[in-house]
Amino acid sequence: MGIKVEVLDPTPDCPAAVVARQTLGSFRDPVKIREFAEGVDVLTVEIEHIDADALDSVASELGLDVEPTPSTLRLIQDKLVQKRHFQSAGVPVADFLGIDDPAAAQAAAQAFSFPFMLKARRLAYDGRGNAVVQSREELEGAVEQLGGYGQGLYAERWAPFVKELAVMVGRSREGSTRAFPVVETVHRNSILLVTEAPAQVSPDVQRRAQEVAEQAVACLDGAGVFGVEMFLLEDGGLLLNEVAPRPHNSGHYTIEACATSQYEQHLRAVMGWPLGDTSLAVGACIMLNILGEADGEEGIQRAHEVMARAYQVPGASVHWYGKAEVARQRKVGHVTIVAPDAVEARSRLAAVDPNAAAALASTSGREEGGQQPRVGIIMGSDSDLPTMRAAAEVLRDFGIAAEVTVVSAHRTPDRMLEYARSAHSRGIKVIIAGAGGAAHLPGMVAALTPLPVIGVPVKPAGAHLDGLDALLSIVQMPRGVPVATVAIGNAANAGLLAARILAAHEPALLQRMLEYQEGMRTTVLGKAQRLETVGWEDY
Amino acid sequence: MGIKVEVLDPTPDCPAAVVARQTLGSFRDPVKIREFAEGVDVLTVEIEHIDADALDSVASELGLDVEPTPSTLRLIQDKLVQKRHFQSAGVPVADFLGIDDPAAAQAAAQAFSFPFMLKARRLAYDGRGNAVVQSREELEGAVEQLGGYGQGLYAERWAPFVKELAVMVGRSREGSTRAFPVVETVHRNSILLVTEAPAQVSPDVQRRAQEVAEQAVACLDGAGVFGVEMFLLEDGGLLLNEVAPRPHNSGHYTIEACATSQYEQHLRAVMGWPLGDTSLAVGACIMLNILGEADGEEGIQRAHEVMARAYQVPGASVHWYGKAEVARQRKVGHVTIVAPDAVEARSRLAAVDPNAAAALASTSGREEGGQQPRVGIIMGSDSDLPTMRAAAEVLRDFGIAAEVTVVSAHRTPDRMLEYARSAHSRGIKVIIAGAGGAAHLPGMVAALTPLPVIGVPVKPAGAHLDGLDALLSIVQMPRGVPVATVAIGNAANAGLLAARILAAHEPALLQRMLEYQEGMRTTVLGKAQRLETVGWEDY
Repeated sequence: MGIKVEVLDPTPDCPAAVVARQTLGSFRDPVKIREFAEGVDVLTVEIEHIDADALDSVASELGLDVEPTPSTLRLIQDKLVQKRHFQSAGVPVADFLGIDDPAAAQAAAQAFSFPFMLKARRLAYDGRGNAVVQSREELEGAVEQLGGYGQGLYAERWAPFVKELAVMVGRSREGSTRAFPVVETVHRNSILLVTEAPAQVSPDVQRRAQEVAEQAVACLDGAGVFGVEMFLLEDGGLLLNEVAPRPHNSGHYTIEACATSQYEQHLRAVMGWPLGDTSLAVGACIMLNILGEADGEEGIQRAHEVMARAYQVPGASVHWYGKAEVARQRKVGHVTIVAPDAVEARSRLAAVDPNAAAALASTSGREEGGQQPRVGIIMGSDSDLPTMRAAAEVLRDFGIAAEVTVVSAHRTPDRMLEYARSAHSRGIKVIIAGAGGAAHLPGMVAALTPLPVIGVPVKPAGAHLDGLDALLSIVQMPRGVPVATVAIGNAANAGLLAARILAAHEPALLQRMLEYQEGMRTTVLGKAQRLETVGWEDY
Repeated sequence: MGIKVEVLDPTPDCPAAVVARQTLGSFRDPVKIREFAEGVDVLTVEIEHIDADALDSVASELGLDVEPTPSTLRLIQDKLVQKRHFQSAGVPVADFLGIDDPAAAQAAAQAFSFPFMLKARRLAYDGRGNAVVQSREELEGAVEQLGGYGQGLYAERWAPFVKELAVMVGRSREGSTRAFPVVETVHRNSILLVTEAPAQVSPDVQRRAQEVAEQAVACLDGAGVFGVEMFLLEDGGLLLNEVAPRPHNSGHYTIEACATSQYEQHLRAVMGWPLGDTSLAVGACIMLNILGEADGEEGIQRAHEVMARAYQVPGASVHWYGKAEVARQRKVGHVTIVAPDAVEARSRLAAVDPNAAAALASTSGREEGGQQPRVGIIMGSDSDLPTMRAAAEVLRDFGIAAEVTVVSAHRTPDRMLEYARSAHSRGIKVIIAGAGGAAHLPGMVAALTPLPVIGVPVKPAGAHLDGLDALLSIVQMPRGVPVATVAIGNAANAGLLAARILAAHEPALLQRMLEYQEGMRTTVLGKAQRLETVGWEDY
């Protein structure tokens, strides 16, 4: 981008020194910060535990752009102040209480019951500074573990989450915000292990998660990218967990997966340049952290084994940070895996790290929304379900998420309008519509959506014309509005057709379709062999 | 990747010094090469105009891995020797003749007639060392321009190409090769201006171009990536132009567009690691070189204007090389644009550089194959064409490339098998099949392909049952083998359905479908208004 980067870091030969000129020194030392600031045009941070007062001084005395603003860093540094700020701005957060003494701790236990979270207000990250309090007996021990009452603590009501989600948000100097895709984050020992993009949650959850993230970032000052972590609850609700005012581990996937990476977005923002396109450029992406499994040489050896596996897996990119020391449970690198779809991405992850793949799989299907549906199955009446369920079964067998509901052209015309008009922006790629008799639903929906619509003529029990009425109603559409019509009552074929339509753009799914066809061939050949062996009389 | 890179470069603060430790010195100086080589584990090159003898010495004396081998560099350095090598290996090249004196020059003119190419054997790049000889009068001037007969020259028959193509190929230490996608390259003043991936040529041309590229690289020694440039002729034939034994400008797009970039592939190859996945991870990608339009400050200013526009365009990434000086016609950076499809990528290119977009568009449709067809339109007999042409017309209007041919289930069953089985691997996404009467073609094709098949019931002139026979034959498929059936004779709707199927995965095309639907609405509203104004009696 033509931007010369200098970095202030206390560790000699720090990882960033590979691509930036390093000034050796602490980012908590006001003198060093001043000295460093005198040599740059714009100052930004990659860690929030920094001397905010020193940044205020250089901003005012040198007239230097500091992004995001020191006031935002100060606010973020104290997690209790941060929580209060977001709460007062109307961002959904879990209930919390500041704790200064044993009485306040008892009051929190009373208010939240057990378990609840006890947290340090400052310098907490990667699981440090957090404790789960399971019972009254554990309370004082937890306080002790976090450094005692004098340290500054607060309690938080336990959030019974089904998934953890995160959204990176870019914020321009003018205050406009732009969210990246929603990812799921999976932690192990409170340290981020895996992120999956896009998160396999409903489009509605995705939309709301981006809204919450943008709402949180909008009420902060200054430019840059912000990492927003949140909880998805059983009832579909979202609670903000915390915000990092900088590029974040949950945004590393953007390097390979998005049109603009979080790092480029951060530079664009702090330089006052236009924010970049945040859309996902690949089908699916998973990021796996490489954590030190042991100290020293053994840790390096174990990490190299992960990297060696990754170099064998299609779509995997290895990032090794070149830290001088490998220590237990510290991040030493990461692997990014891109793939045409989530199924393929997860199978590639399993080839690199089966345990991480299992951890990711274990959160699936817990939340209300489930995987983002890509096929909509609708029918004019629930009496069509015995016919239409075959489409849902086929899609389930292919691992394709579908939504199934009743939409009637004649009895709920407004609902039909809303459903058909919004389907493509909700992530639906194909609509399957079943109807009997006058059977207007498929054609009406096709008139309202730009998506391919598959029509299933349903033959109601005791029908007059054996379903021919529905077939002709569905297939004989005027020029301009096509409906892909399948055989009378053959919803299984509608499901297969939807799978083929998706497979045309997804090599992994195409492979599964070829295997399905091979399976049909084998079944029929088996029957042929049996008929030949047994003979037609005894068959 | 955890690889520490050192670079030998004569220019202080060379662009690579941003990410590598630089040793200042010439790569043509044997002493410097020796000194540099003593400090590294593997030695590779990023330019072929290097002292190959010095590399041979360090390889043998230090027992150092030099990849690709010095013998390959020596072969590439002399373009006449290179041509002879590839010719003897059976790689298709244009006719050529070595030229040492005026008599040989006259003989070449006699053999190739005018125009022909006169080229320097050594140190030619970015248009330097090449001259087009249009007539006998220009011959001596061209020789002079290239440095005279003593310089080492050769003549080449003019290749009447319709497009220039390029393929990056990775070669492992064991000699296995892996091709990247085929790109089209567009040059201006013999300097690369734009590459488009994938090249908009037929799947057959793509396959053959990758074969020629792998064949050429297979007959060289040593590991690394190789840039292979070739000509696509009017008759669909391919001629190798030349090979660069290193990462190449035509492979810059891989950074954003492929699962593995050319640089990572080069490192994997020279380190002896597994070659990476070369598949395209995005829908389409265009790379635009930023060339110095003027010397010095004005050149920088003009380049900054291109970059400023690029920062406004979705999917565009800017690479600024940080060269100490900007000079006319020298590459100072590049812009990579990713997009869901080629149409969108070209429209984004036009927003960055309209002239480059026009240059790219000007080569389209010149070659036999045209754009890569994504829809196959087939019919049982040419008598179905009057019906089926409506599908082709709709697709043409949407800018979707389609192939149209006759395939008969009953008269050419083998051809049908071959067509249906190979369609998905040739890049076809949807098949439209039209048939009348017994109308077996759509169903049989659906049984042989994993792709979605759209069936058009054709009503032949003088048909007995008004096309109902064909409709029922096509729509009433057994479970397991779906055909998306449209109305009798309504091939336009089959084209629209194919467009919707593609649009489900391509936002730009989805937008065009919404506009098409809006257009229909407007047309009908116009007619309504006219009917209301004119009155039903006079309408």
